[in-house]
Amino acid sequence: MKLTQILLAIIVLSTTVAKAQQIKNTNSFTVIPLGVKGGLDESNLSSYLVAAKGSEQFICLDAGTINTGLQKAVQNKLFIEKNAEIIQKKYINSYFISHAHLDHTAGLILNSPNDIAKNIYALPSVIDVLKSSYFTWKSWANFANEGDKPILNKYSYNYLSADSTIAIPNTSLKVTPYILSHVKPYESTAFLVGNNNSFLLYLGDTGSDTVENSNKLKTLWTVVANKVISGALKAIFIEVSFDNSMPNKGLFGHLTPKLLMQELGILNELSAGKLKNVKIVVTHMKPCENCEPLIMEQLKNANNLGLNIVYPKQGVAMIF
Amino acid sequence: MKLTQILLAIIVLSTTVAKAQQIKNTNSFTVIPLGVKGGLDESNLSSYLVAAKGSEQFICLDAGTINTGLQKAVQNKLFIEKNAEIIQKKYINSYFISHAHLDHTAGLILNSPNDIAKNIYALPSVIDVLKSSYFTWKSWANFANEGDKPILNKYSYNYLSADSTIAIPNTSLKVTPYILSHVKPYESTAFLVGNNNSFLLYLGDTGSDTVENSNKLKTLWTVVANKVISGALKAIFIEVSFDNSMPNKGLFGHLTPKLLMQELGILNELSAGKLKNVKIVVTHMKPCENCEPLIMEQLKNANNLGLNIVYPKQGVAMIF
Repeated sequence: MKLTQILLAIIVLSTTVAKAQQIKNTNSFTVIPLGVKGGLDESNLSSYLVAAKGSEQFICLDAGTINTGLQKAVQNKLFIEKNAEIIQKKYINSYFISHAHLDHTAGLILNSPNDIAKNIYALPSVIDVLKSSYFTWKSWANFANEGDKPILNKYSYNYLSADSTIAIPNTSLKVTPYILSHVKPYESTAFLVGNNNSFLLYLGDTGSDTVENSNKLKTLWTVVANKVISGALKAIFIEVSFDNSMPNKGLFGHLTPKLLMQELGILNELSAGKLKNVKIVVTHMKPCENCEPLIMEQLKNANNLGLNIVYPKQGVAMIF
Repeated sequence: MKLTQILLAIIVLSTTVAKAQQIKNTNSFTVIPLGVKGGLDESNLSSYLVAAKGSEQFICLDAGTINTGLQKAVQNKLFIEKNAEIIQKKYINSYFISHAHLDHTAGLILNSPNDIAKNIYALPSVIDVLKSSYFTWKSWANFANEGDKPILNKYSYNYLSADSTIAIPNTSLKVTPYILSHVKPYESTAFLVGNNNSFLLYLGDTGSDTVENSNKLKTLWTVVANKVISGALKAIFIEVSFDNSMPNKGLFGHLTPKLLMQELGILNELSAGKLKNVKIVVTHMKPCENCEPLIMEQLKNANNLGLNIVYPKQGVAMIF
């Protein structure tokens, strides 16, 4: 082989590697949890930043806590910028709210005075509550573009249609919402986030189909099963609020380890047993004395499918 | 002097000293700030526990942050009990909400699932917002005793009448509410807390009379002036949200160092120049890059009256 042939081979090889890396990068996600708990601790409530890997434009899935989470992310050197308010302004592209309970919205409302113009994406039933309960001038100034006057027009409501995919400006991300049941008829939302051929599934609060007397989760599992089989679905963020001792009447539209495993068993069957290739990120554990270790133990003991269960930490980045 | 006379003198003296100490103790207050900031940082929003010194029954003046503040108080060894949720249940007697903006209520709402039956005291206009915006089953379950059904009946609304004093069960405290103006016609509240012959005055968010075109502060100063003169008023908790650079149209019913000093100048005049004997506790500074040091500097420079200005810290006890 002549030198020119060797050089050519190297160039072709390195181009291919670069392209493969590029595809790998553009297909994967950076997630920064800003809050991971399911209640009580005001400094650490459900909120997850998601970006295409390498991008600095994050969408914010739920917004229970923002500022304290960004402070933690700064402590962990995830941003060069040190000021949480500036990070929120510059690097949070838009908000996706799964449902309007305060532990999923407080960070958005409380930080709105210092934010800049952005979109809030949610189902109509969720936007209705933002309009009637929060951005009202009674509980907070109306920083949105509809509702009680005067309208400050900082945030624009974007009404999502269930099962319809939208592209997010200034990102390579696409999002599809699916309706969840959170004590019937109260709606919560699952967001399927796509980056080219890779996907993350984030579920807001949800009851199990059996307890909710619903088919919302079964419908969702049917939609995403082919992405589990193909390996396109990288992670499922799903809640476990209570340990197994909680009776059904005390669940208020939430899951236990046992109910989660029932539901994931259904998805695993629909996915030809491939669910173990998907990271299961357990969110929204409600604090109480020893609750969190107990939930983790019960999940470990019930994990007959050999699932890859992980626990997010506030301000600690995850790559998928 | 015979030995018996000396012994008698010692007994009388020590009894008198003990009685004086007792009066001093029962006349004074322990305050534990659970949150001190005026926005953004979800872990540290306006909330102040107040008890008669030596009592473990605290009333909670505003409730922006509870759980994170109690965690800080535990770190600082203010309670023997280590669990924040248990402390909330056992040692918070009741809640006084100055107004319903989320930075004064989020901790109450978010921690309601783990709390026990208690009273919420507020003006009718404030309770109306709690009922219509928070305990609604749309933004949160209805843990109160009125409003959207089903009613969970954990919290009892107690409608305060302006200027009327009420006694707080299981404490030696009495509270008198006064209406404040927080962007007319939105009402906020000042709570005058009495313990026998001593008093603390806590003001929720308030604009200045000049900017609000109101006489609410002047009326309040007139009411408390005699307590400043007599030395019965130990402290005034009052907000300074913005530095002096904020134009009037950007104040949204808040004070700056300049406006605070204008208002306190009026109170000082009404109090025969005795205001320097009252601790001025500055609350609710809104965070931004360097805002807090700037507000402190502007207050220091404007303090021609020689006032005793102090800054509360989350989870650090104050004795008055």
